[in-house]
Amino acid sequence: MLTEDKCPRCGCLTRRRRNPVPTVDIIIEYQDQGLVLIDRANPPHGWALPGGFVDYGESLDAAAIREAREETGLTVTLLGQFYTYSDPRRDPRQHTITTVYVAQGFGPPRAADDARSLAIFTPEQLPPVLAFDHRLILAEYLKVRPQWLAKLKNITEI
Amino acid sequence: MLTEDKCPRCGCLTRRRRNPVPTVDIIIEYQDQGLVLIDRANPPHGWALPGGFVDYGESLDAAAIREAREETGLTVTLLGQFYTYSDPRRDPRQHTITTVYVAQGFGPPRAADDARSLAIFTPEQLPPVLAFDHRLILAEYLKVRPQWLAKLKNITEI
Repeated sequence: MLTEDKCPRCGCLTRRRRNPVPTVDIIIEYQDQGLVLIDRANPPHGWALPGGFVDYGESLDAAAIREAREETGLTVTLLGQFYTYSDPRRDPRQHTITTVYVAQGFGPPRAADDARSLAIFTPEQLPPVLAFDHRLILAEYLKVRPQWLAKLKNITEI
Repeated sequence: MLTEDKCPRCGCLTRRRRNPVPTVDIIIEYQDQGLVLIDRANPPHGWALPGGFVDYGESLDAAAIREAREETGLTVTLLGQFYTYSDPRRDPRQHTITTVYVAQGFGPPRAADDARSLAIFTPEQLPPVLAFDHRLILAEYLKVRPQWLAKLKNITEI
């Protein structure tokens, strides 16, 4: 798919290939208390996983650690990639492709950047509506959460 | 990271955010014979997994099925996502982020599009050098290949 850019000075139109935009989202397990979600400061509003755009030249791992810190104040240890979601309708702004990580969070949580506030939810108390496809992502995660918590326990005990 | 576009008519410079570019690659298991690799027609040359750029508005699954068909002539059934690789140095042309799939291939293989030729390799006979980070990807795949082949066997028997 091509997209057109219009020159702001002369109005000349140029075409270039348009690509989906890579993002990351992080499922953060926090101190046996549950999952960290942010209340988004920017549209689309609502509760969501912390996450954001991957910078050019930045690996997905680095982007996940950076975004978690920027939005929640937490230092995270990545436990692994969960899945990469790419439905073109998953983000109302544009076509984004998100790689979702599972991580363990450390330190005091503090909302910042794109997060107006944050909270820690147990699986039973998750908000019924989440931004983007994050309800689907968390539903898929909860099916296999015990395996991730076992991995977390093994890491902690080493 | 910002990138500059120069208007071809008036030379005016405009800035926009630069993002990594999403791609897919497909590890195709073909009829108990081994893995399908292509000999690339375009730089970087050499043997590689079939794959390519994800179109705007296209899911990763759809891109993987399309690229496999375009480059190898095969119809593929996706067995699942393997991993998403994002090292900024993995592609000498630009920063690409590739989601790798494992798939089963059907039909007669025929090189086309970006594939100058193709061949089916057993794990023991893989080319020592592959384009991009595909040697690493295949090394990581071969460690867990028995689990994927078991999954394939289960699907075939249903």
